[in-house]
Amino acid sequence: MQTVYVGDKPAIRYATAVAMEFENGADEVCIKARGRAISTAVDACQISINKFLEGVEIKDVKIFTEEIENRNVSAIEILLLKV
Amino acid sequence: MQTVYVGDKPAIRYATAVAMEFENGADEVCIKARGRAISTAVDACQISINKFLEGVEIKDVKIFTEEIENRNVSAIEILLLKV
Repeated sequence: MQTVYVGDKPAIRYATAVAMEFENGADEVCIKARGRAISTAVDACQISINKFLEGVEIKDVKIFTEEIENRNVSAIEILLLKV
Repeated sequence: MQTVYVGDKPAIRYATAVAMEFENGADEVCIKARGRAISTAVDACQISINKFLEGVEIKDVKIFTEEIENRNVSAIEILLLKV
């Protein structure tokens, strides 16, 4: 499955990356982010499905904790599906 | 259902509020946030279920867009359930 990792760039960059994955033929795209980038991931998801894509919906949203260098960091995975 | 609205205070404040709702007898608590506070909401959720509570799990996570004063703002609702 194609995955878009969200960092500290503007949300529109990641929304564009998600849209391109679907336009290149992906049926499912996973958006992943950690920490403060979680808000950007949700923005990117909403921009991609509301502005750039038709017939793509949110299949699943998972939130969980990852341990990175002995620190606990929140994380999100948003799974988008072509319907 | 009890709802905890997450803003710009530290996540631990909201995690404590969530834990208190369950300790006061709630079976379900909804954590809601918009925009940049979405990351804090996920942190608060993870802290409350990993540090403060036992037998509480994530039942559902919804992400969506709200229109506020003609601007589109991303939002999250995390539903926690006592099992």
